[in-house]
Amino acid sequence: MTASPRSPKTARRLSELAALVGGEVIGDGSCLIDGVATLEDAGPGQLSFFGSPKYKRALAASKAQAVLVPKSFVRVDGPLTLVRVESPHLAFARVAQEFAPAQRFVPGVSPAACVDPSAQIDASATVLPGAFVSALSKIGARAVIGPGCFVGERATIGDDTRLVANVSVLHDCSVGARCLLHPGVVIGADGFGFAFDPSVPAHVKIPQTGIARVEDDVEIGANSCVDRSTTGETVVGRGTKIDNLVQVGHNCRVGPLSILCAQVGLAGSTELGTGVMMGGQAGSAGHNHIGDLAKIGAQSGVLGDVADGAELIGSPPMPVRDFMRVAAVLDRLPEIHKHVRALERRLAELEKEREKP
Amino acid sequence: MTASPRSPKTARRLSELAALVGGEVIGDGSCLIDGVATLEDAGPGQLSFFGSPKYKRALAASKAQAVLVPKSFVRVDGPLTLVRVESPHLAFARVAQEFAPAQRFVPGVSPAACVDPSAQIDASATVLPGAFVSALSKIGARAVIGPGCFVGERATIGDDTRLVANVSVLHDCSVGARCLLHPGVVIGADGFGFAFDPSVPAHVKIPQTGIARVEDDVEIGANSCVDRSTTGETVVGRGTKIDNLVQVGHNCRVGPLSILCAQVGLAGSTELGTGVMMGGQAGSAGHNHIGDLAKIGAQSGVLGDVADGAELIGSPPMPVRDFMRVAAVLDRLPEIHKHVRALERRLAELEKEREKP
Amino acid sequence: MTASPRSPKTARRLSELAALVGGEVIGDGSCLIDGVATLEDAGPGQLSFFGSPKYKRALAASKAQAVLVPKSFVRVDGPLTLVRVESPHLAFARVAQEFAPAQRFVPGVSPAACVDPSAQIDASATVLPGAFVSALSKIGARAVIGPGCFVGERATIGDDTRLVANVSVLHDCSVGARCLLHPGVVIGADGFGFAFDPSVPAHVKIPQTGIARVEDDVEIGANSCVDRSTTGETVVGRGTKIDNLVQVGHNCRVGPLSILCAQVGLAGSTELGTGVMMGGQAGSAGHNHIGDLAKIGAQSGVLGDVADGAELIGSPPMPVRDFMRVAAVLDRLPEIHKHVRALERRLAELEKEREKP
Repeated sequence: MTASPRSPKTARRLSELAALVGGEVIGDGSCLIDGVATLEDAGPGQLSFFGSPKYKRALAASKAQAVLVPKSFVRVDGPLTLVRVESPHLAFARVAQEFAPAQRFVPGVSPAACVDPSAQIDASATVLPGAFVSALSKIGARAVIGPGCFVGERATIGDDTRLVANVSVLHDCSVGARCLLHPGVVIGADGFGFAFDPSVPAHVKIPQTGIARVEDDVEIGANSCVDRSTTGETVVGRGTKIDNLVQVGHNCRVGPLSILCAQVGLAGSTELGTGVMMGGQAGSAGHNHIGDLAKIGAQSGVLGDVADGAELIGSPPMPVRDFMRVAAVLDRLPEIHKHVRALERRLAELEKEREKP
Repeated sequence: MTASPRSPKTARRLSELAALVGGEVIGDGSCLIDGVATLEDAGPGQLSFFGSPKYKRALAASKAQAVLVPKSFVRVDGPLTLVRVESPHLAFARVAQEFAPAQRFVPGVSPAACVDPSAQIDASATVLPGAFVSALSKIGARAVIGPGCFVGERATIGDDTRLVANVSVLHDCSVGARCLLHPGVVIGADGFGFAFDPSVPAHVKIPQTGIARVEDDVEIGANSCVDRSTTGETVVGRGTKIDNLVQVGHNCRVGPLSILCAQVGLAGSTELGTGVMMGGQAGSAGHNHIGDLAKIGAQSGVLGDVADGAELIGSPPMPVRDFMRVAAVLDRLPEIHKHVRALERRLAELEKEREKP
Repeated sequence: MTASPRSPKTARRLSELAALVGGEVIGDGSCLIDGVATLEDAGPGQLSFFGSPKYKRALAASKAQAVLVPKSFVRVDGPLTLVRVESPHLAFARVAQEFAPAQRFVPGVSPAACVDPSAQIDASATVLPGAFVSALSKIGARAVIGPGCFVGERATIGDDTRLVANVSVLHDCSVGARCLLHPGVVIGADGFGFAFDPSVPAHVKIPQTGIARVEDDVEIGANSCVDRSTTGETVVGRGTKIDNLVQVGHNCRVGPLSILCAQVGLAGSTELGTGVMMGGQAGSAGHNHIGDLAKIGAQSGVLGDVADGAELIGSPPMPVRDFMRVAAVLDRLPEIHKHVRALERRLAELEKEREKP
């Protein structure tokens, strides 16, 4: 009804796939490949990749038909056919996309969807049963609005973008082209802004009249939230990838090509430059600027600005090497404390003796 | 279909707005104001606010028509029209509300909603397409039940409360008047309670037969959860504001007028007094009491009770000044450790010499 | 329409309930019990439990009709009727289940649900209005698919499993028998996998062609997510219980009978053994193995493998006793730092004097 069943996998010659990723085959390029898998899971007909020396044992034991390896890889004896490439991980992604079943959707608006007559829906778009598309919204070419999705008034959904299921994109917000929003994503809920009035007493709501704007090629994981701004825009930049259960507060600007792992939280007005990476459960206090290409480790708590290219972890964040060194001795802190007091006593004793005539 | 388009902004005289917030105009009170914005974003016709000395530069550069300033503010030369008020932040909230577009909903139950005949729905309430309203539930005056929202059996939704979209309020739970529940909120999922039975083995579910009760004037952010209690009630008190992705465990009592920032987690039976604030990603172990007006910083881990008015941060939580001082030297811990051992050696040397005849 | 109203509570003799849990009544076993409650909330006709010495005062003050106590419990004077059992907590769970109102659902597919003709739905299953059941999926006996739930293509839902509301189980994934998935749960969203291509530049998606498989007797809390794997399976093992807002990354294997408290995050390929417990907001970096029966405290950050039976807390995780000792002195670190420098100066002074002729 909604999508065709998975397309059958079509086998391709290894030499053809190698050419696709600019790779050099070491072995028999005429063998057929019909899928990809990890070194451990791969079997005959499957292509795998070797990206890190720590998987050397898995490589030796792999039953894969062929393996993508770095250009620097020195041939070891064995039956494996190899494909030398610049980046095995990237080449794996490219080849995997060749075999990934495409979900195809029949264009058209389901009669079981609820669509306002003033909504502009491209003829090639798909609106599935149970979707709700509000007045004056726009749905782009080949876009898919899944079951239980809510598109608010005047919201726009770009070409080739898919809202999988139970996604909410609230009024006036926009999502760019080629985006993928997983179930439960909420774009444009009110930012969290209140002013306390002691005379009532009450927290008085500061109306959140801005929007959230998600640029092209963004993926947002299940149940993640991007709040609308107080005024102006909250922005998730082009090509940024966001994992599940992430919070992007109001007025944040998440630079292009950034990576936010699961459960990251960005307080209001946080700015991330280009290509920033934040590990799982990391957070940033509001109004910080995190510079281009900075890497913030998991569970870190960013309290101030972070320089371009910095690699920090912890709370407070520190260089990774420092963090590991602190982690290695932290449990000895009580002993250090005790030791210092013992040294104090012994030193005082010596000092006292010195005073003696 | 569901709501009228935004009402056009109507310009108001500054003097009139100043009167509304008990402010004194320094400059031309007859100028027209048609909106609000931050110091940086504001332009002609817009009112802004100056709440903290750290925005002094932004104030000097602002193109706002007028700016709300504290009563203590000393006039500096410049073209800006000022409005002196007790709290610029609060006055800004009040004025912003004047200009915020009201979303108006046509009363009535959509034929595309699924409503049990035994549900009591006020004639002025709106139930939008795709909503599901169960048996014996009650929907108050002017309440709005958005698309994809689920109201369980015997649940009650108060007057003027809005469930935006894809909100679930489960059976027997209640939400008060003038509440705003953002998309994905879940009220009344089962609390997390199991007893281990080694003879099976299995975790045996402790039925969660209590409810969750949300009092009046509460706002709850996207994808936040308030669990039902084991027996009795989980309570979110009057006027409390909860941000996105927050977890309120079973049997918690969150005092009135509290503020829970994004991704806060309260384990079961946590009690928060009046006006408690918890920063983003902070958590509390179960059965703790956090006193009135306590402030718990972001990412803190509350392990025990917290006194009224305490301001703590960290894990374990400590006074903010202590936290900052610890943060400032934490990365030197390995060096301190090394230093202490060196002192030990040197001291032992001296002690040894002392023993010499 | 969807479920019968709560069944009225039926009173049972205490002796009968005691027999059910293998308990010995101390007092009048003929009294009638019609429900359960905590020591504080319980009144006449209600059974409570005493599981920990810290509730001694609550026990003394309790108005419960009878109280489940450990076998070791020594009778104290007072009017309370007691029931001695192996585990009061477990016995309480068993008795509470006797009184818990069963929600009964009328079998059948609602005409207001959207169900693909190729879906196999057991005649005893219930598909409620607003549910969406895709092609080639299977819904087991007595299963309940609630409003706003999405079941993807070829997905399977086991016997007696309930998807409460707004739950998404994506294509090809499976949920076992007797599972309970609370509102907003997402099973099978894409794992978070990208390879960076500097030539575009872009994060290239690694297709997530595996599945997520949830075994029998699993409960998953509101808005929690279990991602599908890159290839192969993400697994949540039999009898595991997951709280709200938890993230289980792609290719994780969560062993049977594990407990994940709210807001826990497991990065990709984390493996949990049997009976692992993780406290609220704890996280694990990817590719770690956490051994059988390990207990990881709240907010911990697991950086490496954890041995069977280990009980750790903190970041880095350490034994609980160590953690408490570190926590007790952490705020004195600045003072220790200062002290060490003072000792250095005093020691240098003594050393200098020693040099003197």
